[in-house]
Parts: sequence; C-alpha cells; structure tokens
Amino acid sequence: MLWSIMGTIAAICTTVGFIPQIIRGIKTRELRDVSPVMLTLLLVGCSLWLVYGVHLKNPIIALANGFTLSFVMAILLLRSLFRRNRAKDSL
Amino acid sequence: MLWSIMGTIAAICTTVGFIPQIIRGIKTRELRDVSPVMLTLLLVGCSLWLVYGVHLKNPIIALANGFTLSFVMAILLLRSLFRRNRAKDSL
Repeated sequence: MLWSIMGTIAAICTTVGFIPQIIRGIKTRELRDVSPVMLTLLLVGCSLWLVYGVHLKNPIIALANGFTLSFVMAILLLRSLFRRNRAKDSL
Repeated sequence: MLWSIMGTIAAICTTVGFIPQIIRGIKTRELRDVSPVMLTLLLVGCSLWLVYGVHLKNPIIALANGFTLSFVMAILLLRSLFRRNRAKDSL
C-alpha cells in the first residue's frame, strides 16, 4: 500500500513536473535553451511507454505517460511558435 | 519479448533524452529558459521511482531512473553555475 502510494507520487512528480516549464515558457515567451532533441526523444519515449502501459494494463504507467506526452508536445509547439515569432520580429 | 524490447527502448529514450539538454547547456552556456521547478520535481520524482524500482526488483525502472536522476542533477548544477557566472560578469 505504502509502496503503491510512493509509485503514484513518483509518477505525479515526473508528470506534472513539465507544467512549470509550460508556464515559464508562456510567461517569458522564450524556450530557446530547452533542447529540441531532448523534447523529441521524450516524445518518442513517452509514446512507447504509453503503448507499453496499455499493453501491461497498468493505468499508472499509461496515464502518467499520456499526460507527460501531451505536456512535452505543448512545450515543443510553444518553442517553435516563439521561434517563428522571433524570426518575424527580426524582419 | 517484443514488448520488453519496446519497454526498454521507451526507458532508453526518456533517460538518454536528457543528455542533449546537458550538451546544449554546455555549448551555449545558457539554461535560463529551463524551469528550475520542473528540474526539482523531476529530481524528486526520479528519486522516488528509483527507490520504487529497487523495491519492485525491476532493474529497468531502477536503472533508468538512476541515470535520469544523475542527468537532471547535472542540468540543475550547470544551470546554477551559469547563473552565478552571469551574476559575476555583471559586477
């Protein structure tokens, strides 16, 4: 029981952990220092974890990675949006 | 067999995914846009996952999170190092 609570807290931390990055990005309108290669690898990794979690019928793995996947996608989209806006501003 | 290969690739992606962030940070000497709240939450989350993985005697969970933990620590340390250097430069 104690162990599954620990696993759940672990999953919550590594999932909601990406929300502060989205908030920071929206506030500063800068995500230049965040590596796009890291984001892409996390995207691929979380997609595979999601499929693996569904296969294992493990709701913690599936849900946590489903959410993380959407957060990482959001960061990647925001990053390219800010990049495009910067390019426009410099015209 | 196919599924455990998929799980392993997933774990490798979400673990080595942080290496490009370290490389980018070292190259640009800037990690300002990377959220310190995200890094701290990932640090706590990976530590709990590591303990949970050891408890479950699951080497994939334990190893992947052990490595991710050390990469996230490195990013956090580099970030505060670059921050301190910037503060010194502006004196």
